[in-house]
Amino acid sequence: MRLSIAALFATLAFAAAASAQPAPRTTAEILAAAQPGEWRPLDLDHTLVMTFGAGKTAIIELAPAFAPETTANILTLARQRFFDGLAVVRVQDNFVTQWGDPEGETDKARSLGAAKTTIPPEWSRPRDRALPFTRLKDRDGYAPEVGHSGGFPVARNRRDTWLAHCYAMVGAGRGDAPDSASGGELYVVIGHGPRQLDRNITLVGRVVQGMEHLASLPRGTGPLGFYEEARQRTPIATVRVAADLPDGGPAGKLEALRTDSASFEALVEARRNRRDAWYKQPAGYIDLCSVLLPVRAKP
Amino acid sequence: MRLSIAALFATLAFAAAASAQPAPRTTAEILAAAQPGEWRPLDLDHTLVMTFGAGKTAIIELAPAFAPETTANILTLARQRFFDGLAVVRVQDNFVTQWGDPEGETDKARSLGAAKTTIPPEWSRPRDRALPFTRLKDRDGYAPEVGHSGGFPVARNRRDTWLAHCYAMVGAGRGDAPDSASGGELYVVIGHGPRQLDRNITLVGRVVQGMEHLASLPRGTGPLGFYEEARQRTPIATVRVAADLPDGGPAGKLEALRTDSASFEALVEARRNRRDAWYKQPAGYIDLCSVLLPVRAKP
Repeated sequence: MRLSIAALFATLAFAAAASAQPAPRTTAEILAAAQPGEWRPLDLDHTLVMTFGAGKTAIIELAPAFAPETTANILTLARQRFFDGLAVVRVQDNFVTQWGDPEGETDKARSLGAAKTTIPPEWSRPRDRALPFTRLKDRDGYAPEVGHSGGFPVARNRRDTWLAHCYAMVGAGRGDAPDSASGGELYVVIGHGPRQLDRNITLVGRVVQGMEHLASLPRGTGPLGFYEEARQRTPIATVRVAADLPDGGPAGKLEALRTDSASFEALVEARRNRRDAWYKQPAGYIDLCSVLLPVRAKP
Repeated sequence: MRLSIAALFATLAFAAAASAQPAPRTTAEILAAAQPGEWRPLDLDHTLVMTFGAGKTAIIELAPAFAPETTANILTLARQRFFDGLAVVRVQDNFVTQWGDPEGETDKARSLGAAKTTIPPEWSRPRDRALPFTRLKDRDGYAPEVGHSGGFPVARNRRDTWLAHCYAMVGAGRGDAPDSASGGELYVVIGHGPRQLDRNITLVGRVVQGMEHLASLPRGTGPLGFYEEARQRTPIATVRVAADLPDGGPAGKLEALRTDSASFEALVEARRNRRDAWYKQPAGYIDLCSVLLPVRAKP
């Protein structure tokens, strides 16, 4: 490929700028240099530890700032051990993995006990200065502004702020009625971010560890990816609130990079414009759902 | 949620418009009404049929209009049965599944035979009026314009057109050197579209059937999702050119909706603004990588 004159000048300009500055840091270097205060523990009072299949674990951090009632209902359900013994009932390729009561639509449905059966939609909340919001400068097709709030990808307009359907985000399944999500049936995004779901269903959090297990389950062969036979379902062993486990269980051992930290911003920029040897043409842009949340074992 | 006055008027205006028009069609209705001429057979001369694992099949339509040399090399390799007996060597969650020669970096690397070992980058091609391009009206963060060409998601600027890294797109792995992709090592996108790879690596086509098998493989636990032990790899049984199989093999039984057809445009609009009972707030936008290519068995 021949360089155009304009591209040649741009290259020379970049080379000149580069010679006057230290080499851009890699994402690994940025993470290694992050200060202790830029990391935060998980919110153990609002984190679920789910064990399923053959000894797999997924850790889900909930979002009470965005879905307070649904989060509270899910905690109630978990503490009643509602989820124990239920199953993954649906895996639709490039869309969602969903778990809940296989008999949920029948007379044999498990009781929700003290939990609510209907909850008003928590699809967005009024935009509010009290809500943390670290804006991503990159434009978005689905919303006027996007960014992060408390570790979650969010979008907003002049009036409202809402969680965005990115990979690993967890939501509460519902029927046609907007208030029909109890939180007893949950899904996680396993494909290209289905942002068309934003503001149509209540997102409740995100998987911060264990996505690889939820995303690699066999796809269901029925309509919408539901399994056609009971034996195809992956059983859920337990769902516990992390705060109820000794030292928070496996969730207590983790920490996440604060999405309002300088290192997070540097990391986003390093991914927006990759400068390592492999990349030849930095994108100059990053999609909200391509921003990853660093989570690691506490040092 | 209370309706604002503006929203109320918008609702009334929509209701008035809706009453004067037939109900919007569902995606299923649009597909059912598509004319025979809106469907096309796969390009069997440039389609691969890959069998792997326990009787799984994936069908990959190649893109000679965008990657002529790499496509030709892959066909040469397939006809030499280069891929037979190789394996899936890498599955990185939310990124790619990759297959090729596990010994590719060693002295035991399989010979590429008559195929080339290096190929000049085919990361983009000059924008050209002869190249079909059906523009998507939705704005894109990574490129000035996006749309479809011959069934593939593409992006372009004033000078160049290139294939876009959406779910199911297949590319040719390379090292740091831009010309180091022979097509003997291939990857497919299994997560949120990693568009930062656009114009950094040669895309060669897309999986049109069998993605669910490639996306649900166990994730590798080594760096970059490479498997750490040989037994973890999924063996590739055969990779054949569809045209070399009787009646094109399984690829000969399929047809794809033309991305320059009226039905495809209607389908995109139906997904941009969902009107079925479940959706309460149409997005009014669709991301390039959220546009799906309908593929079906020939009637």
